[in-house]
Amino acid sequence: MLKRRHRNTDNSPMPHGTDSLLLQLFTIFVWAKVFGELFERLHLPAVLGEILAGVVLGPYATRFILPGDTIYSIAEIGAVFLLFTIGLETSPADLIRVGRLSLRVAVAGIVLPFALGFLFLRMHHEPTHEAVFIAAAMVATSVGITARVLRDMNVHKSRTAQIIVGAAVFDDILGMLLLGILVSTVSTGGVQWLHLTLVSIKAVGFAVFMIFVAPKVVDRMEPGIQQMQTQDAPLVLALALCLGLSVAATQIGMAAIIGAFFAGLAFADFSPRWNLEPRAQAINQFLAPYFFFTMGSRLDLSVFNRPVVQLAIVLSVIAVLSKILGCGLPLYREGWRSMLQVGVGMTPRGEVALIVALIGLQMNMISQRAYALVIMMTAITTLLPAPFLKMLFAPDSNDPGSGASGGEEAAEVQVSRLG
Amino acid sequence: MLKRRHRNTDNSPMPHGTDSLLLQLFTIFVWAKVFGELFERLHLPAVLGEILAGVVLGPYATRFILPGDTIYSIAEIGAVFLLFTIGLETSPADLIRVGRLSLRVAVAGIVLPFALGFLFLRMHHEPTHEAVFIAAAMVATSVGITARVLRDMNVHKSRTAQIIVGAAVFDDILGMLLLGILVSTVSTGGVQWLHLTLVSIKAVGFAVFMIFVAPKVVDRMEPGIQQMQTQDAPLVLALALCLGLSVAATQIGMAAIIGAFFAGLAFADFSPRWNLEPRAQAINQFLAPYFFFTMGSRLDLSVFNRPVVQLAIVLSVIAVLSKILGCGLPLYREGWRSMLQVGVGMTPRGEVALIVALIGLQMNMISQRAYALVIMMTAITTLLPAPFLKMLFAPDSNDPGSGASGGEEAAEVQVSRLG
Repeated sequence: MLKRRHRNTDNSPMPHGTDSLLLQLFTIFVWAKVFGELFERLHLPAVLGEILAGVVLGPYATRFILPGDTIYSIAEIGAVFLLFTIGLETSPADLIRVGRLSLRVAVAGIVLPFALGFLFLRMHHEPTHEAVFIAAAMVATSVGITARVLRDMNVHKSRTAQIIVGAAVFDDILGMLLLGILVSTVSTGGVQWLHLTLVSIKAVGFAVFMIFVAPKVVDRMEPGIQQMQTQDAPLVLALALCLGLSVAATQIGMAAIIGAFFAGLAFADFSPRWNLEPRAQAINQFLAPYFFFTMGSRLDLSVFNRPVVQLAIVLSVIAVLSKILGCGLPLYREGWRSMLQVGVGMTPRGEVALIVALIGLQMNMISQRAYALVIMMTAITTLLPAPFLKMLFAPDSNDPGSGASGGEEAAEVQVSRLG
Repeated sequence: MLKRRHRNTDNSPMPHGTDSLLLQLFTIFVWAKVFGELFERLHLPAVLGEILAGVVLGPYATRFILPGDTIYSIAEIGAVFLLFTIGLETSPADLIRVGRLSLRVAVAGIVLPFALGFLFLRMHHEPTHEAVFIAAAMVATSVGITARVLRDMNVHKSRTAQIIVGAAVFDDILGMLLLGILVSTVSTGGVQWLHLTLVSIKAVGFAVFMIFVAPKVVDRMEPGIQQMQTQDAPLVLALALCLGLSVAATQIGMAAIIGAFFAGLAFADFSPRWNLEPRAQAINQFLAPYFFFTMGSRLDLSVFNRPVVQLAIVLSVIAVLSKILGCGLPLYREGWRSMLQVGVGMTPRGEVALIVALIGLQMNMISQRAYALVIMMTAITTLLPAPFLKMLFAPDSNDPGSGASGGEEAAEVQVSRLG
């Protein structure tokens, strides 16, 4: 009798596959979070831990977890909500406020890595389409690690810290636009200048509309939203717009995540009032681990050999130097320390780089080898800057732009002095 | 050139199917919410609107949306989080406080509908397994509508209101146990008394452990949770436990949602401190519409004919009367009006009934016809009580148990007078 306690698979209480789906959901979630926690304890970014979990447990290594189709679908939805949440943290009003200096830093910090990356890869005889995708993955800064280091050092209110955060936000938008143009161009099967121009106009128009017009539309809708009887109406509308703009983005030939990002952007200035951010973050907490885990599980370890590792290191050096140079140049009047602070602070790549690589892989635009290159470049540029940032923002600085301070007040005094 | 703007499906920026998955996710979400909003405006429960959206747009009617496998999987995950959220709102500490009277109301209100429903269906020559599942779907109260009516009338703090809410919570737990025992028994292919006894002990043991022991375990873990470096550690742990206990429940032969429900229960008393409820609710807001929509989309309209509708009406009458009788009886000392208030207040069935029917359908234990019966019974018992509740709780009452009042203070005075 006791032996019959095991589940009779023919009479499963869920349709076939759901039990094992729940098991996969559980296992992936727990392992991703365990690796993330370990990385956090080593003062490394949790995201890299979640990716490593996928590498270690996935089909190319231990084969402990072989994600099914549904998991991959959930991972894609996770990417959509990840970008939605990033958008939600990107206030258009703030952007307009931090203004031109951050924008200049962002643009120069995108143009240089893209150009140098592309040139180097072409000189290294990589195919053009692969070079374009890898170079595009080299542009977008992920400022999370920098922000944390600065907050730990209590200099996150310094002027340079504000320039970094502002530029990183513009970076996300510009990176999204570049990806949008890339995906749309590739979909038509090659570079056609008229098409490229049209796509660029479309992408920029989309961005301008979402930054300047959409928030006003949401504002106008507010009385209507408050009259809605549906529970949590603002959240429901935000989710609907997130899904809707994701679909719309794919319809005009861009990646779904671009629509999700701009949907977040449209609601960003209303997020505090409607308490959207912690709730979108909750969906993100649930779904994002599947995205990062499957990202790692797609990494074919057999492509790693000495030339690939060497290439990845050279590429990372180019990514670091071009970012420092590009972001530092617009600040040439502020002294070398400020230039270095902003440049190094802008160095880490992250989610957007990974997504560009993933989309390239899915569109058969880049090989497993190029995918591995981007993941290594992302890991290196993410891990490298933290110690240098600590040096550059250390309190023994003599430079007024350093934001060095022993405490919150000192930092704020400095801001008012400089800002 | 302009003609090439449409997406080239061979170079889709997502793997095949994800684009159409996002489109399905968007369409279903929006239609479910639109129907929900319309129902809310008609003072009908939104859940019924979301189900109707599935019926109207689904494969058995207009065939406008044909949910794919991934949507069904997401719907199952939605059911898991739905029950997790219900569990999260079910405080074990409160349960222990409201105590015996509510428990007696709940038990009598479960035994009578199950017994009368089963007897009637057997007399009506329905097969035993079908009769058991339909009868099980007749037991669990969904108190949401009652709670809202009482809140609208400002009598939600009256003694009868508190008895209703307490009993409904016990109802959920008992309904879950009954479903667990049912699923486990069916999995072994028939009623075997020793097995039934073992399963019942297992199910009750699970419930007792999760109500009395698990909250203490979570309490003990709190210092460890606070030391965790992972962002939103309490939420992450709660989600992990939700998925883990769902898997565990299927492993011991119960339905996944039972594990999810008890996982929510274990965290319920910590929900305010860790702000879990609004964040779990956000995941729920996103996923639950897929559950209710697919629930409607499974409703085969061709089974509806005059005998089925008649049977559904008779079944609903039995469901209503047996609940009023069962829940009223333990209150015989409090006068007929209190008995009626609690009985009518406990009448609406809801999510648990629908889930029992769905699991029955998935296990091939009930036919499309029986599934339709349960959905109709749920709709009727949900829609019927509201006007009677308003009459029974109307301020012209002379009965002290009625909680009638013109305002908050009056209701509270009455509570202190009676409680």
